[in-house]
Amino acid sequence: MDVPEEELLEAIRRALSGSAEPVRVGVGDDAAVVAPGTGELVLTTDALVERTHFDLDTWSARDLGYKAVAVNVSDIAAMAASPRYALAALTLSDRVDAAFVMELIGGMRECADEHALWIVGGNLSRGTDVVVVVTIVGEVAPGRAVRRDGAGAGDVVVVTGSLGAAALGLRSMTRRGNWSDDERTAIRHLMRPTARVGEAAILARSGATAMIDISDGLGIDLRRLTRSSGVAASIRLADVPVAPAASLDEAIGGGEDYELLATMPSIEAADAARRDIAETFGIALTPIGWIADGDGVTAIGADGTERPLEPAGWDHFA
Amino acid sequence: MDVPEEELLEAIRRALSGSAEPVRVGVGDDAAVVAPGTGELVLTTDALVERTHFDLDTWSARDLGYKAVAVNVSDIAAMAASPRYALAALTLSDRVDAAFVMELIGGMRECADEHALWIVGGNLSRGTDVVVVVTIVGEVAPGRAVRRDGAGAGDVVVVTGSLGAAALGLRSMTRRGNWSDDERTAIRHLMRPTARVGEAAILARSGATAMIDISDGLGIDLRRLTRSSGVAASIRLADVPVAPAASLDEAIGGGEDYELLATMPSIEAADAARRDIAETFGIALTPIGWIADGDGVTAIGADGTERPLEPAGWDHFA
Repeated sequence: MDVPEEELLEAIRRALSGSAEPVRVGVGDDAAVVAPGTGELVLTTDALVERTHFDLDTWSARDLGYKAVAVNVSDIAAMAASPRYALAALTLSDRVDAAFVMELIGGMRECADEHALWIVGGNLSRGTDVVVVVTIVGEVAPGRAVRRDGAGAGDVVVVTGSLGAAALGLRSMTRRGNWSDDERTAIRHLMRPTARVGEAAILARSGATAMIDISDGLGIDLRRLTRSSGVAASIRLADVPVAPAASLDEAIGGGEDYELLATMPSIEAADAARRDIAETFGIALTPIGWIADGDGVTAIGADGTERPLEPAGWDHFA
Repeated sequence: MDVPEEELLEAIRRALSGSAEPVRVGVGDDAAVVAPGTGELVLTTDALVERTHFDLDTWSARDLGYKAVAVNVSDIAAMAASPRYALAALTLSDRVDAAFVMELIGGMRECADEHALWIVGGNLSRGTDVVVVVTIVGEVAPGRAVRRDGAGAGDVVVVTGSLGAAALGLRSMTRRGNWSDDERTAIRHLMRPTARVGEAAILARSGATAMIDISDGLGIDLRRLTRSSGVAASIRLADVPVAPAASLDEAIGGGEDYELLATMPSIEAADAARRDIAETFGIALTPIGWIADGDGVTAIGADGTERPLEPAGWDHFA
């Protein structure tokens, strides 16, 4: 770092200042003070770690900041809640400068603005690698959060958008340039995922019994949902919406797509949500299978053969 | 790491489970859901970074976990607020194992229990070094947060406890063993700082006009307070409470003591708070100077000579 902490903090303070009625005390005191909501509070924290989630050669600071906020907004969305306030704890290394930090903050603010979310505080530390930890406080009407443990036999499994783009983006990035349009779109999807806040609200309103965002891959996240709910699931592989130019393996085993995986109480409810989401956001909602009693996740091939769905994905500790 | 993420998460879930009436959804979903408070929300985040704040050779995982929560509770205390909920984002390296993580969580829980604070969520990532980021959501009665920008001319500057122990502890740790009792106490103070939540409440009740916790050293943090308030301060060096065996330089320039620095509207208010804090907590509250119009911080020597107080301290980016 090339500037004293105080100067950098002051620059960040200026970048984040603005008229924010519910923010009583923003960046620059020991802690932020914000107005209480009327709903329940929804709290989540997530990290982007250099060498694990990104590297400084291929990522721009702006995309990194954007994504650090987006992945947290996605977790708030997966509870059918609304994001309200964000905090950022930045660990910075000798390899980044003040311009990097201001771009990072700019990207965070960009995503925050899209979701009408206030960045109210943070912290700077020095370390070997860059680590960006964002925490978001959201809000949901009392009792209305959609958990991952509510799926029941007979429910329809649905997924928003398409899957595998992030994995394709990651694969494309391993070779420089000469990318197809699909690959460029996929790289952008990897770096700037769209948190499905509005789509989640529609799914909740349409009766979603359980919901999770697909951060580690359909295989892993569906297994999490079914385990939490104490049920089994069957997935028709032919129905999994695969992103353009991505493979089925990338759609099932790749992570970081940040689409929503939900269970709906009936075909009718799934269809109502599908129409509403298509009309409002132009995004697909695809039924890909169903919930049954038991445990495990079964993949059904195009020819009707059944086998356990491999829960491959981005398990950073496997 | 020697175990799969899912198993580790399940172990953490078990370690943190318990009957928590206000926690609707705890560790294990996309986000935690908690009951709303009646007051304003107070939000803070802080990181402990390997090689910057601690190293794995001399620190136990339990102390590290304890401190990661304590430094955040201290920020909440400095607003005269009460801590309620905590989230932890852990970046773990190949050099730590599952036992380390469980001890870390144990230390976090130990500090959380002391402050009746619920750890409701978190996140695990893999990285080059260990980084522990804790975020705390606290609560304060509307309009009652004590900021750092309210000091006015004529206010008395007070400090809780004594200063310099953490710096002495750090200095002592550079040589192995043969520590005096004072040095042992200082090392413990460095690794397990006490967040002054109750003391802060008394200071606020007694009329504190501004407050900050001393995380980066009296020099730096007093400068922050006076700058935010747009005032000057004078400090009598002979009155600065120096921890046993620590030097005056360590008391002024050393960081990480996590004592409170506050400004009181009068000698009487300071004295009332002093008596109350001594009776309730057995902790000293010492008047060390006063606020005046202007800017800068002046140190007054025992012989009456005046010079600018050097704002040395733990500026990790200087």
